[in-house]
Amino acid sequence: MKPKVGFMGLGIMGAPMAANILKAGYPLTIYNRTLAKAEPLAKLGAKVAASPKALAQDSQIIIAMVTGPEALYELLFGPEGAAAAFGPEQVFINMSSVSPSFTLELGKELAPTAIRFVDAPVSGTKKPAEDAQLVILAGGNQKRVEELEPLFLTMGKKVIYCGKTGQGSMMKMFINLLLGLMMEGFAESVNFGRLGGLNLETMLEVVSSGAMNAPMFQVKATNIRNKTYPASFPLKHLAKDAKFVLDTAYELGAPVPAGQMLLHLYRLGVAQGWGDEDISAVMKVMEHLSGK
Amino acid sequence: MKPKVGFMGLGIMGAPMAANILKAGYPLTIYNRTLAKAEPLAKLGAKVAASPKALAQDSQIIIAMVTGPEALYELLFGPEGAAAAFGPEQVFINMSSVSPSFTLELGKELAPTAIRFVDAPVSGTKKPAEDAQLVILAGGNQKRVEELEPLFLTMGKKVIYCGKTGQGSMMKMFINLLLGLMMEGFAESVNFGRLGGLNLETMLEVVSSGAMNAPMFQVKATNIRNKTYPASFPLKHLAKDAKFVLDTAYELGAPVPAGQMLLHLYRLGVAQGWGDEDISAVMKVMEHLSGK
Amino acid sequence: MKPKVGFMGLGIMGAPMAANILKAGYPLTIYNRTLAKAEPLAKLGAKVAASPKALAQDSQIIIAMVTGPEALYELLFGPEGAAAAFGPEQVFINMSSVSPSFTLELGKELAPTAIRFVDAPVSGTKKPAEDAQLVILAGGNQKRVEELEPLFLTMGKKVIYCGKTGQGSMMKMFINLLLGLMMEGFAESVNFGRLGGLNLETMLEVVSSGAMNAPMFQVKATNIRNKTYPASFPLKHLAKDAKFVLDTAYELGAPVPAGQMLLHLYRLGVAQGWGDEDISAVMKVMEHLSGK
Amino acid sequence: MKPKVGFMGLGIMGAPMAANILKAGYPLTIYNRTLAKAEPLAKLGAKVAASPKALAQDSQIIIAMVTGPEALYELLFGPEGAAAAFGPEQVFINMSSVSPSFTLELGKELAPTAIRFVDAPVSGTKKPAEDAQLVILAGGNQKRVEELEPLFLTMGKKVIYCGKTGQGSMMKMFINLLLGLMMEGFAESVNFGRLGGLNLETMLEVVSSGAMNAPMFQVKATNIRNKTYPASFPLKHLAKDAKFVLDTAYELGAPVPAGQMLLHLYRLGVAQGWGDEDISAVMKVMEHLSGK
Repeated sequence: MKPKVGFMGLGIMGAPMAANILKAGYPLTIYNRTLAKAEPLAKLGAKVAASPKALAQDSQIIIAMVTGPEALYELLFGPEGAAAAFGPEQVFINMSSVSPSFTLELGKELAPTAIRFVDAPVSGTKKPAEDAQLVILAGGNQKRVEELEPLFLTMGKKVIYCGKTGQGSMMKMFINLLLGLMMEGFAESVNFGRLGGLNLETMLEVVSSGAMNAPMFQVKATNIRNKTYPASFPLKHLAKDAKFVLDTAYELGAPVPAGQMLLHLYRLGVAQGWGDEDISAVMKVMEHLSGK
Repeated sequence: MKPKVGFMGLGIMGAPMAANILKAGYPLTIYNRTLAKAEPLAKLGAKVAASPKALAQDSQIIIAMVTGPEALYELLFGPEGAAAAFGPEQVFINMSSVSPSFTLELGKELAPTAIRFVDAPVSGTKKPAEDAQLVILAGGNQKRVEELEPLFLTMGKKVIYCGKTGQGSMMKMFINLLLGLMMEGFAESVNFGRLGGLNLETMLEVVSSGAMNAPMFQVKATNIRNKTYPASFPLKHLAKDAKFVLDTAYELGAPVPAGQMLLHLYRLGVAQGWGDEDISAVMKVMEHLSGK
Repeated sequence: MKPKVGFMGLGIMGAPMAANILKAGYPLTIYNRTLAKAEPLAKLGAKVAASPKALAQDSQIIIAMVTGPEALYELLFGPEGAAAAFGPEQVFINMSSVSPSFTLELGKELAPTAIRFVDAPVSGTKKPAEDAQLVILAGGNQKRVEELEPLFLTMGKKVIYCGKTGQGSMMKMFINLLLGLMMEGFAESVNFGRLGGLNLETMLEVVSSGAMNAPMFQVKATNIRNKTYPASFPLKHLAKDAKFVLDTAYELGAPVPAGQMLLHLYRLGVAQGWGDEDISAVMKVMEHLSGK
Repeated sequence: MKPKVGFMGLGIMGAPMAANILKAGYPLTIYNRTLAKAEPLAKLGAKVAASPKALAQDSQIIIAMVTGPEALYELLFGPEGAAAAFGPEQVFINMSSVSPSFTLELGKELAPTAIRFVDAPVSGTKKPAEDAQLVILAGGNQKRVEELEPLFLTMGKKVIYCGKTGQGSMMKMFINLLLGLMMEGFAESVNFGRLGGLNLETMLEVVSSGAMNAPMFQVKATNIRNKTYPASFPLKHLAKDAKFVLDTAYELGAPVPAGQMLLHLYRLGVAQGWGDEDISAVMKVMEHLSGK
């Protein structure tokens, strides 16, 4: 019999992830600060909890997928927080993007509850979340991660074990740094080509014919072509993750010169009011800087 | 009957390109400043010219593939330069990487000879050059480019027409900017992950499982794994191309914040004496900056 | 009669500051984690406390001058911490460099003790500290700051009131950002001139003849001339302060593109093992990057 | 008897410099592309030449003070250019800002005329030019520079001999790099302080009380206070000079990480249409990036 799962956080990523767990036949309890977002899943059979604590009391595996450390902290340790109902028989999986050091600290703060803790952020954005094609980046006890694999595979296509607690978050920082740099690099290059008189479609043909051809370029080019940037991964979230990357790099003594530039540029986008648009709206930042 | 081709510049790229023309049955005359590099091709049946001018006198189509504007200028207008033998019945194809403004200027300087001029740099490095898998980025008269397609396809898999004279060079700047940014971004991210305790192979698995997966990453990872960087595309050449990109961006008023960072970092590599290693040796720059 | 002062932290800055308080006739109790540093002052008549708590019990005004938030936190809230002995009749002055948000948080954590809290970091390095020529950047209750002016003026030449609690720290961030940028700018320019064949003394003459002439340049040029960088302000401390600046800038939404570059460059110096040398050792970073 | 001087280029800098030569009693012939700018000086007794060539025919010492290499080239070698009338009895002084390599090339191109060539750009902006308080940065034959000192001192307060031909221009690059970095650093810091709630006047008081106090800050603060940026040194000219600095740094292998950032930021100002405002309008760039 499948374990009872509690899922907290029903945003762009969380909603389809929870839906995929439910479709796979797991008994599911959900919680979201804004209740309206829980309704579609409730109609599909999910039970709606009145508080994080109530959700935790009702679940064997508790998952959190929220926008960052503050939101996560609130869910766990705020009023009617989930941690108050955590115990040694349960598993808590944090799938939200946070820094490795935050993950380690969280592990310490959860230790008194004796809950088993796994950090498992994901690689992938809205579409892979909907299609259960995410890649799960898991850190913590390896045997426990293996036991959770069937559950993870309702949401994703693959589980990659990254190491002890915190290494899942570290891998997420790594992949988001690369993602951010590639997105910015693509926008900077395409804007440069545009000002030099090149045609977007011809540039894309050259990219797709060579060793730089990454799937994301063709996807993001659609937004650039249409001059509309519906959020698959909101710009403001990447700006936030970039800050975590820089903080982590500072602790590690890792040079991240382009990463620093990245934060600067994505924040420009947020300052212009484009934070809720897709990360590919960094193209608008480049155009804005061009003044033409 | 196939036209007589003259090929000047037999470096990492030029040598295999010329060999592929020869294999395809074109009568081939070659010239290289250092004669030794001409020998392997001479053994295969190429005729060796004593000077660029002698080569031009002997060829209907003249190709140049050298390391930059200075070398190209010397070949064309130096002592016994090729341009002295150029005439209206011939075609001159520059496949070297130069800036669009240099290409336009070159076109003007060649105008008195009445030679037909095509700018056609390539996307691809050593291996694609050897395998005749380059992508030809052609600028100039479109009908003429089409007529040259059979010749181009002895060296590459595809010809992409980019626009009038100079647009081939512009496209090359575009794709090299993207290449440079992706290479640096990959090295910066992998070094960050390394210092955070991640395993190289696990990082590669994550990259190859997601939307950032570009062929170049797996290829360049081999160098990083082996800690040896044999030049497929020498670091110093990318540093030089980055300077052309910045000069072009300045003329266009195009913001290239990450591109500027790029030049800074690749030049650090050159300053450390790694200019003749592959562009992936930017990984050594990142390690060097880390001090560990 | 002068109030009893307790001074915690006897480093490069703290030792001369405490000495100046003592010379001005204030009864002084001192505490330092490493006891040896307290001896010179003890010989001059200062009383050495066995713990921060003991110091606090013995003082009406308690001053802390340590290297950052962790050290400060330890002094106040660690074992035998000073805060345990704080009460409404006392004043606590933090003169250490910390971020404004840390200062605000600290204010909240001290609130239960009812101690009166003033944040008062300083502008100036070792020499001004010795000569009682510091500039005190005070934040908090304005009347209280005025009452403390005689005490501040034993250490400095001027008190500048910056606003409510946290604004002293904000002003310190501002001036350290400017200091860091000017120091880096000077080193980058002088290294550029050096590589271009210019003489150091001639460059200094040009600087001193124009509108860019700041006193720090002539002082720091001495280190560059002698190729030895005794710490007046250690490089690693500026790197740390630069991180606080970036964190603060992130919270404020303030663009600090050069500030980010700064952190990158100063951290390179720390990575090379020059963290205990003066901030002017950023000149060594520039030379190192040059490879010559 | 004073030698006959010809002065070409009557912009923000050239007009007051020429006026000071005239006031000192030198017979003066002037030329400017836009004739209107010559009128005020003509009223004071200057002779207006119809072309650069006519000016050269009429002068023993010819001075050029224009906005860059293109304008200078045009004056010397364009139609009715000055160089056509140059001979061994004359001296040509270039006071315009150009790169050292351009200066060296110019020297070669002038060699056939046998004219004696001195490169002598200046440190200082509009006000020092009006007050004859410029600093002359001279390169070339040292004895010749000494002979010209009386003439230089009609325009400036000091002549600094920098070395052989090209070193005057190199010193100008050096000082403009420092100027650009300090101006940007000041704007970045003040904008950061502003967003953190600090008062402009309090920030200025802190700056003026410490080792960072450079005369330019108080002058440029006036523009920031008034939110109006009348050009003492136009932003677009500094952007141009920054490009010369980067080109020179590239040739020298000199790392200029902050200099690259600088060019990026000043060009943003030009892209926004602020190129004719003062360099202190980089403050507007910072505010613009802040989005508030």
